[in-house]
Amino acid sequence: MSEHITVVLPDGSELEMEHSATVEDVAYEIGPGLGEDTRAGVVDGELVDKATTLTEDCEIEIVTEDSDEYLQLIRHTAAHVFAQALQRLYPEAKLAIGPPTDDGFYYDVAGVELDEEDLEEIESEMLEIIDADYDLERVERSREEAFEIYEDNPYKQDILDEEAADEEVVSFYVQDGWQDLCQGPHVESTGEIGAVTLLEISASYWRGDEDNDTLTRVYGTAFETEEELEAELQRREEAKERDHRKVGREMDLFSVPEHSPGCAHFHPDGMTIRRELEEYIRGKNEELGYDEVFTPELNKAELWKPTGHYDAFKEAGEMFAWEQDDTEYGLKPMNCANHAHIYDEGQYSYRDLPVRFSEFGTIYRNEQSGELSGLLRVRGLTQDDGHAFIRPDQITEEITSTLEVIEQIYDLFDLEVLYKLETKGDDAVGSDEIWEQATNGLRESMESLGLEYDIESGEAAFYGPKIGLDARDALGREWTIGTVQLDFNIPKRLELSYVGEDNEEHRPVMVHRALLGSFERFMGVIIEHFNGNFPTWLAPEQIRILPVSDDNIPFAKRLQNRDFGQFRVEIEDRSWTVGKKIQQAHDDRVPYMLIVGDDEEESETVSVRDRFENQTQDVPIEQFRSHLESEIEEKRVEPDFLD
Amino acid sequence: MSEHITVVLPDGSELEMEHSATVEDVAYEIGPGLGEDTRAGVVDGELVDKATTLTEDCEIEIVTEDSDEYLQLIRHTAAHVFAQALQRLYPEAKLAIGPPTDDGFYYDVAGVELDEEDLEEIESEMLEIIDADYDLERVERSREEAFEIYEDNPYKQDILDEEAADEEVVSFYVQDGWQDLCQGPHVESTGEIGAVTLLEISASYWRGDEDNDTLTRVYGTAFETEEELEAELQRREEAKERDHRKVGREMDLFSVPEHSPGCAHFHPDGMTIRRELEEYIRGKNEELGYDEVFTPELNKAELWKPTGHYDAFKEAGEMFAWEQDDTEYGLKPMNCANHAHIYDEGQYSYRDLPVRFSEFGTIYRNEQSGELSGLLRVRGLTQDDGHAFIRPDQITEEITSTLEVIEQIYDLFDLEVLYKLETKGDDAVGSDEIWEQATNGLRESMESLGLEYDIESGEAAFYGPKIGLDARDALGREWTIGTVQLDFNIPKRLELSYVGEDNEEHRPVMVHRALLGSFERFMGVIIEHFNGNFPTWLAPEQIRILPVSDDNIPFAKRLQNRDFGQFRVEIEDRSWTVGKKIQQAHDDRVPYMLIVGDDEEESETVSVRDRFENQTQDVPIEQFRSHLESEIEEKRVEPDFLD
Repeated sequence: MSEHITVVLPDGSELEMEHSATVEDVAYEIGPGLGEDTRAGVVDGELVDKATTLTEDCEIEIVTEDSDEYLQLIRHTAAHVFAQALQRLYPEAKLAIGPPTDDGFYYDVAGVELDEEDLEEIESEMLEIIDADYDLERVERSREEAFEIYEDNPYKQDILDEEAADEEVVSFYVQDGWQDLCQGPHVESTGEIGAVTLLEISASYWRGDEDNDTLTRVYGTAFETEEELEAELQRREEAKERDHRKVGREMDLFSVPEHSPGCAHFHPDGMTIRRELEEYIRGKNEELGYDEVFTPELNKAELWKPTGHYDAFKEAGEMFAWEQDDTEYGLKPMNCANHAHIYDEGQYSYRDLPVRFSEFGTIYRNEQSGELSGLLRVRGLTQDDGHAFIRPDQITEEITSTLEVIEQIYDLFDLEVLYKLETKGDDAVGSDEIWEQATNGLRESMESLGLEYDIESGEAAFYGPKIGLDARDALGREWTIGTVQLDFNIPKRLELSYVGEDNEEHRPVMVHRALLGSFERFMGVIIEHFNGNFPTWLAPEQIRILPVSDDNIPFAKRLQNRDFGQFRVEIEDRSWTVGKKIQQAHDDRVPYMLIVGDDEEESETVSVRDRFENQTQDVPIEQFRSHLESEIEEKRVEPDFLD
Repeated sequence: MSEHITVVLPDGSELEMEHSATVEDVAYEIGPGLGEDTRAGVVDGELVDKATTLTEDCEIEIVTEDSDEYLQLIRHTAAHVFAQALQRLYPEAKLAIGPPTDDGFYYDVAGVELDEEDLEEIESEMLEIIDADYDLERVERSREEAFEIYEDNPYKQDILDEEAADEEVVSFYVQDGWQDLCQGPHVESTGEIGAVTLLEISASYWRGDEDNDTLTRVYGTAFETEEELEAELQRREEAKERDHRKVGREMDLFSVPEHSPGCAHFHPDGMTIRRELEEYIRGKNEELGYDEVFTPELNKAELWKPTGHYDAFKEAGEMFAWEQDDTEYGLKPMNCANHAHIYDEGQYSYRDLPVRFSEFGTIYRNEQSGELSGLLRVRGLTQDDGHAFIRPDQITEEITSTLEVIEQIYDLFDLEVLYKLETKGDDAVGSDEIWEQATNGLRESMESLGLEYDIESGEAAFYGPKIGLDARDALGREWTIGTVQLDFNIPKRLELSYVGEDNEEHRPVMVHRALLGSFERFMGVIIEHFNGNFPTWLAPEQIRILPVSDDNIPFAKRLQNRDFGQFRVEIEDRSWTVGKKIQQAHDDRVPYMLIVGDDEEESETVSVRDRFENQTQDVPIEQFRSHLESEIEEKRVEPDFLD
């Protein structure tokens, strides 16, 4: 064991520290002011308490109140404040775990039954604890002492048995005499929590396993200021309003009936959107040189054995697989094995590559029923899948053209794409050389297009480096959507080949890519992103004609069938006031209304109203039609006739 | 038992006959000449021996050498001749069954191993038996005597135990001392077989059950004249040439790999055809007022319980169904249950009906692996399915518009549709009144369109009357394809309703219809029908450009990308002679070749050659393009630029 270690600071400079120095020691070594302000540290990417001792060379970042990570400390402490408040009111409550999350915190508890009203009472108690501004103190105790403290709490015992199995001492955080087994880090006193609220109650399982105890999970969130909390609550309210399950029901887009858990049924209007997306993506696939294929959902399980998918999916229980008539069948959990076999049936030379197959392939994965939610967490999904078989020297060009198209697509939906480059991990197959070539290819592609990306070092799946795509929506939320993934494994396992210029057999590289990801998930995202106010090209109903009186219905029908026959047009023929008709059309999120009365009929014009409540009169029919043609042709994101 | 029975003759006239009179007696009663010529009879639709006694009132038709049924007698006797010849050469051979079929006969035998060469020898022996012109004699023997004769033949014993369980005497047919247990009817002597041949050997199971003995099945066919046999053999040769599996492989349209038995994979060129068909049918569905939906393949098995499908399909082993995580799942064997549920989620008034859902729905049925064949006998298929929910008074109009479209569709492919009306059987659900209304509706629809149809009395499924559609192809073969089926059962079982004008709840009638049937089967049929020579609108490759020399390749590329950019165009850029290039394009069944050399390049023209080997020069590019646009737009069945 060396006497000294080297710590690397964010600016790249290095410090020599004594072995077993703490994070706080490092901060003081940098400067006494920083030492004073230290709340925690990030050591080799992990957020830790400032008291953490450093025993080997590492990268370190000091967390102060100004750091982004500070919010996690506040939320973690808020979870403790919740637990203390709960036990003040319900001394019998047993605590399980209470971590901070990306948007707040939760605590899993047992031994109490809580409802929404109880949360208010607990929240009041929490505010008292915050007002009292108790210090949080980190205390180390022996494992024996910890077991005594938790003699009635099987969950904390389980943590001591599992996570702390190798520790002689464990840390507690103590506030106002109340304590919790915890690694931290936390803020210094409860008063640092500027704003807190409890959000909802749900059920969970100890360690997420359905076979274990059912626990009560209480969600909350906390911020430095009331203003931030208010903004967050408003965002949550808006997200709830836009919940794709709610909007989907209001607009009759889809259903997920009980007899098909996790498998959405697309109703006519939802199918219209899905079909428009399909056609759009089909065009993009053609641009990219993909040939469409069809492969069946049902296959023998043996299909996925050589590729390694069977072991991975079957053992995780994630595949629908069964034995019937002495044969093991499965539903495809991905399309790549089938596509690889189609490639394998052909004979290709280096001049034929890339060979590219696309499929709107429906796949099934046995997600846990508790995890299912509308279109976003599903069992059945149709990917806009594609696999290209390329030469190693084609990687950069292939990825570049794919990313170019991805940028176009997401731009069309006003969604920002966040790119992540996942690089080689410990379990990688394939030579260092090909990984380097491939990873550089991905990197060069993104850089040549001027795309920013995060690097997730060592995070790639074993079979090749990957570009992960997240889309950031109108509410700033991020959704994992498409993917661009290189694969050295399948070509090797299935012995795919092409004949090179040297007349020898060579191994192609396989590219897996999905542009939207799946129609289910993408539609779930855009329903929420647009709050159902789809661009006109996607809107199930593009125009609603509102006859001022029943006398104008024949004219309305002529407009529907003849003048606007190429669009999706409905007539509101109920005998309502025009005001009520307008209201209904707004509620139904129709991009354009055409109000037609006697004046319009006489002058062969229409009054055009859009969903932003702009309206104009005396529009010649032809003028509106040609506007709409171009709006739809160009797939513009908002109805803009009245801009 | 009455002393007399009444027999009705084909012309409607009636005869009083003694009870237990034979068919031959009836013929003699009609006239001595007919009595003399009688070979057999058709009694209440069943072909029987002329010695058959009549014990109740019946309809009867006398079969002579001039009757269509006479060919069956010849073929049945040919089966006996085969069996006798076989046993002359292989006395150890055990006979199972040997019936006539629609296009010949077969005999299942055991105890011998035969190969193609053996067939020649047996055929020679058969010709000797035919030349000898042995009389066939019908002999009745007791069951006991029959069992003695067949003491070493378990199959004939099984027939005696099962089919002849209630008979005291059974009939044998004897020729030249050789005999076979048989009900007949047969020709009078072996010499009546004008022409016979053995065709092939395959394996079968006793009573078609995989658990029973494997037998050797020998197929043959027979005719009255050599000319007819020659024509049949030629037809068979042509059918073999056009076998969709062979053509599919030659054109790389699809594959049915081992890992997906019965589930076709569509390769890019096959998918092009499938996509064209989809788009065409999608347009027809729109014309008919269908709204497209999507429903998943995977559902809980409980979905099909209320409709009765679970019992029917599951018990027959025809469904893919399994238990996983304590839930019974199934792959949908039809789309109707899902569509009915989508209907059920809505609220409809009489004014909203018909409500129509269409889906290109992929379904799976667990057909026996031995039955599977290419695209024509499959497990996985995508139907161009549709379900309309209509008021009873809308039946005629709905069916008429559907049939009109069906006529258009099949006309487009040069396929003749044969209509069959299947009417109420014994197990029918629903009142006589609604059956009558529905059946009349179907009848009126066909008659209003001037369509001829056969009536299959009592053949309808229990849930409603049906129009069955067969298509007759270029070789005169008939294929069961689409269907138009009324259904009273599902609406009742699922309690579907709409609100009538009387404000009461009413039950809709459900229409099941598939226009093409399934893409798999329809493509199998048209591949054979066209022998891969698809109409230009369907052809995967519509134009092949043949540059006269490599110097003309840049011009060819310009034509491909610019002038004919909207079509599916390939360039033959191998350094072959033009003759060889032409030959290859013919082999590849490309509708049009454009031959371009220096002259064409200079004059901005093309030499057009079609797959009928017509050719013309100096065609202005624009002229050919506009022809092709209209040929494809109108979906004309043959390339006709050079007509």
